[in-house]
Amino acid sequence: MPRLVMKFGGTSVADIDRIRNAATKVKREIDAGYDVAVIVSAMSGKTNELVGWVDEASVAPGANRSGFFDAREYDSVVASGEQVTAGLMALTLQQMGIDARSWLGWQVPVKTSSAHGVARIEEIETEALDARFAQGTHAVIAGFQGISAEGRITTLGRGGSDTTAVAFAAALGAERCDIYTDVDGVYTTDPRITKKARKLDRISYEEMLELASLGAKVLQVRSVELAMAHKVRLAVRSSFSDEPGTLVCDEEEVMESNVISGVAYSRDEAKITLLNLKDTPGVAAGVFGPLAEAGVNVDMIIQNISEEGFTDITFSCPVDQVARAVKAMEDGKASGALGYEAMVTDEDVAKISIVGIGMRSHAGVASRMFEALSRENINIKVITTSEIKVSVLVDRKYLELAVQALHDEFELEKAG
Amino acid sequence: MPRLVMKFGGTSVADIDRIRNAATKVKREIDAGYDVAVIVSAMSGKTNELVGWVDEASVAPGANRSGFFDAREYDSVVASGEQVTAGLMALTLQQMGIDARSWLGWQVPVKTSSAHGVARIEEIETEALDARFAQGTHAVIAGFQGISAEGRITTLGRGGSDTTAVAFAAALGAERCDIYTDVDGVYTTDPRITKKARKLDRISYEEMLELASLGAKVLQVRSVELAMAHKVRLAVRSSFSDEPGTLVCDEEEVMESNVISGVAYSRDEAKITLLNLKDTPGVAAGVFGPLAEAGVNVDMIIQNISEEGFTDITFSCPVDQVARAVKAMEDGKASGALGYEAMVTDEDVAKISIVGIGMRSHAGVASRMFEALSRENINIKVITTSEIKVSVLVDRKYLELAVQALHDEFELEKAG
Repeated sequence: MPRLVMKFGGTSVADIDRIRNAATKVKREIDAGYDVAVIVSAMSGKTNELVGWVDEASVAPGANRSGFFDAREYDSVVASGEQVTAGLMALTLQQMGIDARSWLGWQVPVKTSSAHGVARIEEIETEALDARFAQGTHAVIAGFQGISAEGRITTLGRGGSDTTAVAFAAALGAERCDIYTDVDGVYTTDPRITKKARKLDRISYEEMLELASLGAKVLQVRSVELAMAHKVRLAVRSSFSDEPGTLVCDEEEVMESNVISGVAYSRDEAKITLLNLKDTPGVAAGVFGPLAEAGVNVDMIIQNISEEGFTDITFSCPVDQVARAVKAMEDGKASGALGYEAMVTDEDVAKISIVGIGMRSHAGVASRMFEALSRENINIKVITTSEIKVSVLVDRKYLELAVQALHDEFELEKAG
Repeated sequence: MPRLVMKFGGTSVADIDRIRNAATKVKREIDAGYDVAVIVSAMSGKTNELVGWVDEASVAPGANRSGFFDAREYDSVVASGEQVTAGLMALTLQQMGIDARSWLGWQVPVKTSSAHGVARIEEIETEALDARFAQGTHAVIAGFQGISAEGRITTLGRGGSDTTAVAFAAALGAERCDIYTDVDGVYTTDPRITKKARKLDRISYEEMLELASLGAKVLQVRSVELAMAHKVRLAVRSSFSDEPGTLVCDEEEVMESNVISGVAYSRDEAKITLLNLKDTPGVAAGVFGPLAEAGVNVDMIIQNISEEGFTDITFSCPVDQVARAVKAMEDGKASGALGYEAMVTDEDVAKISIVGIGMRSHAGVASRMFEALSRENINIKVITTSEIKVSVLVDRKYLELAVQALHDEFELEKAG
């Protein structure tokens, strides 16, 4: 029988009523002839409660945060959240007359690295599951967890249940991996910014990766990477409706021919420029090494051409990391390691990106973007491009206007 | 190094402050030179929350209780409570500078029968624990749980963490098993009934079993049986004080020479008499078979001598089971299986018991009991005796008076 993986996130299993609602969707697929593996997250709020206790237990009373805790114990505590939901989902399915059993990471087993808290799945042994499928028993699997070679419980890090789902879909040879969540699909842009935002029927892995990392927080980036690597067809669907959602798949399966699939944005960006930097070999490393050490997540980097041995370097980072970045640069100048004349910071910028695999075959996409922004008198401060994406920084106050203008320009409200 | 097992119940690990308080007691024993295995229950309230969810998931919405659920899933859900506490206790000990790790039932492993929900420990493999003790790592063990031969999580039933503790004390050859709870020991009787009630320093296994099953709810009966079988010295101590508590041990270790160790009571008893029952072979089975089938927990049984082929049978049971018992008897009479003339029920009785290994060597203990009650004009309705116990049923209104009179008669306020 064809197999299907169905994953339900925390808000979709927040209480017994919601678990029952999710189970109804599982039953529908079973009735349609699938062998189903259900992957569940912890009830929403539970993981935070457990993490809070771990933090509290790890600090001496009255002391400042020590930052230290044993990640093996963290994993064992936190993985209990999915253990509870897996059992409850199995019971709910049984109550509906479905033959189902729960599987914990160590029972499958889901073999992972020993990097507790951020473990990677190395192998899923499906023999036991296969045998139970053959007997007609559907599987409910605790997401987010596995077992290390040392026999300890591991977790995959936040959002790891998506990764669990995709890994099982690959290992079980599932026809599709349905990710049920509290949104009903992937949109051309944020519907709160323009009512014209349209739900996409299909989107390619590459586009989804760009959209996810740009702030369209629907799927965990790692799960999309894994789906792409194993060609797992991934559907984003709502737990609270019966709409088909958005299918994330190979670009050959994407029928729509819009040049651009979506407009993404990131609101709280900052831009820092170092002026008249002495342009010697290794100057970039001299700037970005200290930034990395200071924990600054540098996003865009632009270096202008050198004039008479001097250059300007501009980079962007989240606005709440500006203080760290400035200190790292000032320290570098004070120690003589960095020779720049002045530093200019701009904490009032936002990033707007257009994403689409159609760009590869269509010239002039970037210039259409710039013209559309120009017509609205929006000044572009920084530009970067990749194969399927063009990103610009603009003043934050223009964010909504820019997104709307680009959505209109590329007619994203119409299916291609 | 000598080993010690320390078990903390739900109220002793109800939040991080209490876990820290318990950890302080563990540290004191480690500093005193012990290798310690800490057994933990779930945070108080958590098990009930989990059981509530299981019940809810197992019943169709709007339906009456179905009574059915998959005990394997129940166990997996409910065992998560101890998993959380074990990790948090390990983290707390680490924060205090102690080398500790948590162990779940399946990690040790604690091998049990497959009777989910009421599993019995068959074997504890201590090799891995022994190896870690040798490296200086103390153990924190999730109580109440094990693993079946099928690789599923099992639980030992309510109060099972006491049993886990005693089983580990036996398997590890521990010098003592300290059960930390919210009372500070075993008393000669309920201190709410008489202020003269005195905490016992020591009590024998046999006496503790009689007191526990009679309603002095300090230790689970099974854990005392197991301790007796393996000669595990068991201490009942308070989590909220540093008092030494009560040691439950072999009678040879009990120094006190009081004839009686304690006065126990059970408030809500009922007495049912079948009059002029036709005395044929198998008559007792004809009475008590149907009662067992009806789920009536029969306690005391008295059959008077037969006169002219007829006899009277009296039995006691909890007052809330009287309706079931009466129906079973009436059904038996209606079907002709049971031939009795009349049935008399008395729902206003209480059971008072005196318990003491000293009875074995002292004659006249029972008559002292009857005389003491007689002096207070308390009528005795039923008497049963065992080797170390005498129990009587009296009108419920005399319960306090009877306990006080017997406590005084045997001078239990004085250490022997």
